Amino acid sequence: MSCRLPVAALACAIACGLAHAAPAPRLTTQQVLDAATPADWRRPDPQHTLYLDLDAGRVVIELAPQFAPLHAANIKTLVRAHYFDGLAILRVQDNFVTQWGDPEAEHAERARSFGAAQRTLAAEFERSIDRSLPFTPLPDGDVYAREVGFSDGFPAARDRRIGKTWLAHCYGMVGAGRDNAADSGPGAELYVVIGQEPRQLDRNIALVGRVLQGMELLAALPRGSGPLGFYERPEQRVPIRRVRVAADLPDTERTPLEVLRTDTPRFAAFVESRRNRSDAWYLQTAGKIGLCNIAVPVRSAAPTTP
Amino acid sequence: MSCRLPVAALACAIACGLAHAAPAPRLTTQQVLDAATPADWRRPDPQHTLYLDLDAGRVVIELAPQFAPLHAANIKTLVRAHYFDGLAILRVQDNFVTQWGDPEAEHAERARSFGAAQRTLAAEFERSIDRSLPFTPLPDGDVYAREVGFSDGFPAARDRRIGKTWLAHCYGMVGAGRDNAADSGPGAELYVVIGQEPRQLDRNIALVGRVLQGMELLAALPRGSGPLGFYERPEQRVPIRRVRVAADLPDTERTPLEVLRTDTPRFAAFVESRRNRSDAWYLQTAGKIGLCNIAVPVRSAAPTTP
Repeated sequence: MSCRLPVAALACAIACGLAHAAPAPRLTTQQVLDAATPADWRRPDPQHTLYLDLDAGRVVIELAPQFAPLHAANIKTLVRAHYFDGLAILRVQDNFVTQWGDPEAEHAERARSFGAAQRTLAAEFERSIDRSLPFTPLPDGDVYAREVGFSDGFPAARDRRIGKTWLAHCYGMVGAGRDNAADSGPGAELYVVIGQEPRQLDRNIALVGRVLQGMELLAALPRGSGPLGFYERPEQRVPIRRVRVAADLPDTERTPLEVLRTDTPRFAAFVESRRNRSDAWYLQTAGKIGLCNIAVPVRSAAPTTP
Repeated sequence: MSCRLPVAALACAIACGLAHAAPAPRLTTQQVLDAATPADWRRPDPQHTLYLDLDAGRVVIELAPQFAPLHAANIKTLVRAHYFDGLAILRVQDNFVTQWGDPEAEHAERARSFGAAQRTLAAEFERSIDRSLPFTPLPDGDVYAREVGFSDGFPAARDRRIGKTWLAHCYGMVGAGRDNAADSGPGAELYVVIGQEPRQLDRNIALVGRVLQGMELLAALPRGSGPLGFYERPEQRVPIRRVRVAADLPDTERTPLEVLRTDTPRFAAFVESRRNRSDAWYLQTAGKIGLCNIAVPVRSAAPTTP
């Protein structure tokens, strides 16, 4: 069959890949997901999954060691030393970021010990493009980068002229705050994007993962009234009960999730359903989609039965 | 002088306009704003300014009759009939919209009267490009539209091939919710964008203005747990004390604001300061900026002295 959707050649190839299996010309996102098979979903590795437990509930974060191996390892070292337990959310800047860490970090005598973790860490702002890293390109371009798409479920950009790829600052992406020095963000203070994509941060700071569940717990917090959205009074801070690596908890304390794979024809169909909404409400379709307008679907998974 | 910034020709022309006055090659946003003169700012017309008063504070909205004259007029008719007073915020969907209106709108017998306002209204999803409407283009392109920029302070897109321009769904933009029919959104239920730009809505629904102040009061609300983020229990809704047209209040009850003009060399310098951040923190600059990454500055204005 021919592909008559008004899309670039690449997207056409992707969309037609699905069309062979399901020739309906326009599917809603719900229809695409309803037709997904178990193979279209993956379970994040519990060794690379963090639970940030707040009084209001749990935030689940998938780390991206493919892009930031040193940071992922250092953060896990901090987590396993219970570094974050009892620390707090310190900063919520509207349409920008929510950030958490040690309120006493600036006071050497009161700051929490890093234990065996590193205090400085080589910049992991980008990495080489190579065959070990999948990349599913999007067809509609990007204001900031030459090419954008998804690698292992994470929004990414790349530039083949320089052979580099990097994670993109989309809603829900988690990064390691730093001072002015490139190596000053070891992962002891983390932030998550809660607004319009702050893409000017790309390649300036290490993104380390993405929130899979619980964004509403970080995005709906009162904004801080201090400079940069820092809370001005200690009692405004949101306490962190604990942070754990999923693999370190028994099954009964885990939050089993599945994430839609981003390297399948199903994902291509999902993207197409976002580019051209066929829900009855839409009077015209955009025919385009921006990188950060694609939220990779996450769903609850039944607990593993022994 | 020559303009050596690595920008497209158009941006170069804009940036150089400023450079004649202030030849510093890279200014921070703060420096640009510090150098602004009174003529770089404008006061929104109180006849086109709404105050949405919540228990937590005031949200100030500037209407855009340039793009949606029927909706702006109908909303003002509703406001002047005190339609919104005592209604509520009904819906907060994470990374999408906060929406307010009449909880009983679906129940004809209990719904609040529209008074003299229209119940249906012709679609105002786009308008003709003409010389009466200023347009300051941005230089870096856009995923969704052929051309993007600012008209009278509002983020806008246009397509000269079809002679049309329209407001863009950026953070803080306010629109008139509708059902499936194009004319079913008369402005009695309004929404504001609280996350990543939902540009797929562009040209599908009437945007009517933008929040100038108080976004944090709408963006930090608890997300609704029902479908589409609707609150499931009446007590979860956030009550609206009142909505007023600024012109209808005495000076002492107004919130005087000034907005940076978007048709000046100063605005071009502001855009350039966002494209290429020269703050010490940045290790590399993006050299690009997306439409919705530009938040047009708003500041408090001293009350008018009689």
